[in-house]
Amino acid sequence: MQIPEEYGGLGLSNTMYARLGEIISSDGSIAVTLAAHQAIGLKGLLIAGTDEQKAKYLPRLASGEHIAAFCLTEPGSGSDAASIKTRATLSDDGKYFVLNGSKVWISNGGIADVFTVFARTEVVDKDGELKDKITAFIVERDFGGVSHGKPEDKLGIRGSNTCEVHFENTKVPIENVIGEVGGGFKVAMNILNSGRFSMGSASAGMIKRLIEMTAEYACTRKQFNKKLSDFGLIQEKFCLMAVKAYVMESMAYLTAGMMDRPGFPDCSVEAAMVKVFSSEGAWACVSEALQILGGLGYMKDYPYERYLRDTRILLIFEGTNEILRLYIALTGMQYAGKILTDKIKEIKRGNVGLALGEFLAKLRDTMGRKVDYGLVGDRGVAHPSLQESSKKLEENIYYFGTTVRGLLSRFGKTIVDEQLVLKRVADIVINLYAMTAAISRASRSISIGLRNHDHEVLLTNIFCTEAYFKNNYAIAQLQKYADENLDDFIKKAAKQVLEKRAYICSHPLDRTF
Amino acid sequence: MQIPEEYGGLGLSNTMYARLGEIISSDGSIAVTLAAHQAIGLKGLLIAGTDEQKAKYLPRLASGEHIAAFCLTEPGSGSDAASIKTRATLSDDGKYFVLNGSKVWISNGGIADVFTVFARTEVVDKDGELKDKITAFIVERDFGGVSHGKPEDKLGIRGSNTCEVHFENTKVPIENVIGEVGGGFKVAMNILNSGRFSMGSASAGMIKRLIEMTAEYACTRKQFNKKLSDFGLIQEKFCLMAVKAYVMESMAYLTAGMMDRPGFPDCSVEAAMVKVFSSEGAWACVSEALQILGGLGYMKDYPYERYLRDTRILLIFEGTNEILRLYIALTGMQYAGKILTDKIKEIKRGNVGLALGEFLAKLRDTMGRKVDYGLVGDRGVAHPSLQESSKKLEENIYYFGTTVRGLLSRFGKTIVDEQLVLKRVADIVINLYAMTAAISRASRSISIGLRNHDHEVLLTNIFCTEAYFKNNYAIAQLQKYADENLDDFIKKAAKQVLEKRAYICSHPLDRTF
Repeated sequence: MQIPEEYGGLGLSNTMYARLGEIISSDGSIAVTLAAHQAIGLKGLLIAGTDEQKAKYLPRLASGEHIAAFCLTEPGSGSDAASIKTRATLSDDGKYFVLNGSKVWISNGGIADVFTVFARTEVVDKDGELKDKITAFIVERDFGGVSHGKPEDKLGIRGSNTCEVHFENTKVPIENVIGEVGGGFKVAMNILNSGRFSMGSASAGMIKRLIEMTAEYACTRKQFNKKLSDFGLIQEKFCLMAVKAYVMESMAYLTAGMMDRPGFPDCSVEAAMVKVFSSEGAWACVSEALQILGGLGYMKDYPYERYLRDTRILLIFEGTNEILRLYIALTGMQYAGKILTDKIKEIKRGNVGLALGEFLAKLRDTMGRKVDYGLVGDRGVAHPSLQESSKKLEENIYYFGTTVRGLLSRFGKTIVDEQLVLKRVADIVINLYAMTAAISRASRSISIGLRNHDHEVLLTNIFCTEAYFKNNYAIAQLQKYADENLDDFIKKAAKQVLEKRAYICSHPLDRTF
Repeated sequence: MQIPEEYGGLGLSNTMYARLGEIISSDGSIAVTLAAHQAIGLKGLLIAGTDEQKAKYLPRLASGEHIAAFCLTEPGSGSDAASIKTRATLSDDGKYFVLNGSKVWISNGGIADVFTVFARTEVVDKDGELKDKITAFIVERDFGGVSHGKPEDKLGIRGSNTCEVHFENTKVPIENVIGEVGGGFKVAMNILNSGRFSMGSASAGMIKRLIEMTAEYACTRKQFNKKLSDFGLIQEKFCLMAVKAYVMESMAYLTAGMMDRPGFPDCSVEAAMVKVFSSEGAWACVSEALQILGGLGYMKDYPYERYLRDTRILLIFEGTNEILRLYIALTGMQYAGKILTDKIKEIKRGNVGLALGEFLAKLRDTMGRKVDYGLVGDRGVAHPSLQESSKKLEENIYYFGTTVRGLLSRFGKTIVDEQLVLKRVADIVINLYAMTAAISRASRSISIGLRNHDHEVLLTNIFCTEAYFKNNYAIAQLQKYADENLDDFIKKAAKQVLEKRAYICSHPLDRTF
């Protein structure tokens, strides 16, 4: 889909790719098979390939004659991608690399013709020392020494092919290095970062289908002489699905639109936010949809249990949500940290007056709870019917900003090890991005008079109110002495469990020591 | 297990039954097969059977020669059990009933010898009118006309047998009526109510095994040169599992202990609370345990995906969590409603002074936030190390009480239709019961010096703090004009979706009307 037309592809923008993702997601296995091919398998060529490499490989990958796979993960190296052990050694004549190692959980691994493989290579660094660095290669199955294991027996996406791929003395010509020798880690991250945004529209597409299927049932099935759709607890599930679909869609297309701008700005943090939000939203919505059907939903005669099994992988692959939350928080804080460091330098240079003045202005804002980032009011960019939601967003942003400043001064660089803190920071940032995406979309829909824009406003206001209170709670959890902050207790309880590798409470029926 | 010894059973108390449930839960299919037999299949005989019925059927059900099943649900009648269509017609000679109808999702349906079947019968009521009422029957497969469908293809508990059971002109002797003719609905509810409590210890047992399995992995697997167990985000999952297991266990054994008291008091609300809390806790914990394993957790080589599939049914069967939440809230409010009605009558009788005095005392309490139910302080029953948690519980109870009074005066009897209100009420009540169970267990553990009681205190304090804030939020949601209360918006959004049976927002890429 995204291969340029000159190589026989459709040359779709990220936005158009997201749009098609909505449709493809009706079958998780097909979606994964296609994504393994084009979103990660051949993406290295698109991002960092030479013209020669593109001309050689892309046409047959575009036509489907060849299928691609992405080979990064190894048994000992999941989230910690930099620790792979597969090795590529330059031949004595310098014409090819000899590749040895094993990769696991490779989607399309058993059917692919072309693999993007990451391996350690020896590189001479600036100081003239030999160092192990990761390099990316295009490997054809026909190069020899390529084999694969039997398809993995998985919970879901069972129509997709996942297996181990082994390379044994596979000769890879030096022309097949993607990007620079030693520059493979960056290539791998760029590939992964570039594809994640599409999970938002794919999940939204799935939820929209779930809404249609379950609405049909809820409007027909009667219990207690009423249609299910007349019950508040069933209505709540439909509202949840509509809100999640709306917000996911808003985030996904906002992100895709930014990625399509001239210069193709780096939107990896935004894409990670879309991935975390939409994978967890999809998981929650599928379970609620299944619940609407009750016992029927648990049966294989209906598609809900398959959707549930397929959806569960979304929280694990393309970067676990744990790793992505750390990435989101740390990347954001790095930026905030840099600004703060500059401020401190300013103070050190003697500009105390300036810094102090700013501090007092902030303090005044806080006391008066007057926060204005230009969303609301006469000249605000958000539509008046979204005024309350916009105020909530502005207030959240303001207190979040002061909280992050506090965290950076409390922890300094050691914040990288404070995963519970980082998780709460990430949760807030994701909500803020989601609120921003929903408010701006709904504002636009009103302005240009799209049908049902009042429904969009309703969904946005519901989401923003809930997110606002969640953010306030998370901000409280981030305060050192707040009752809400249980992080030290959580760590202590976990350590006591992990030390014994067991649940250590006495049984309630125990009577003595 | 619970069949009296005189009939060849073990005669176990509810507490001992709960204890064995911890062990049996290592395999969901076995647990369901056993529960279908003894917790519901033959329970009618235990609760309401005559001595003759017991003597005839229980010995072979105790020995396992015969297997039992419980036949209530029908295609058109899931949560609304009273709407079943299966009919039993008395024969002309008055010696037997002729049974016709079909039941669905009958655990053990294909292997059972004895069925507890619920069917409509014509009954002459007090006014001499003919009415359809439900009657419970013991039906032997050998009575003839009993057939079953093929086993259902389910998401989980696949080792258990679930199928349709059909009765076609099955002759059931009148001696095989359980309880009274027309009294079957109450028998059905009593059976279901009596078994639910055991889901708490079963789920806790499963989580304890999950902790052991995942701790082994987390303490061995290294990423980023650290063991997984050293990462905060992994620790948080272990804390969650330990807290949930502890609270479930506490609730389950508190409930079982009450049920075992002389006179066997009705604990159906408590049992429903255990069921809702533990099914949702188990679902959350299994998913987190799977997540600790990452990609491995998604593979059938490991048991996590099976646990996930098996656990999903817990939110549906033995009463969906939706129905049980309504039951919990309405039963509790019925009691509160009665007390309030009495108060109003008192005022009407002229005892205004008394009522007003009480009102002022309450108001003083509220203003001073002085709430004391005797848990804390010098003569408090909770241990001092649980003082903060006990205060939180007392404060929650106090504000919840005033909230319920407000709800009853706001809605009156129409509160039965306010499902979103009832859900929030149920969530709070469940948390209050959970806090109570945990605090009293931890207090006891300290008092009698059980090993690791400090860990119990830690888990209790973590749970109570989180529950306290959740309760405060839910109490806010129950206030008519609070920002937190989105119920009207939720219903409105859902109705707009349900009216069109579709997600009705324009696409973000739409440009015009």
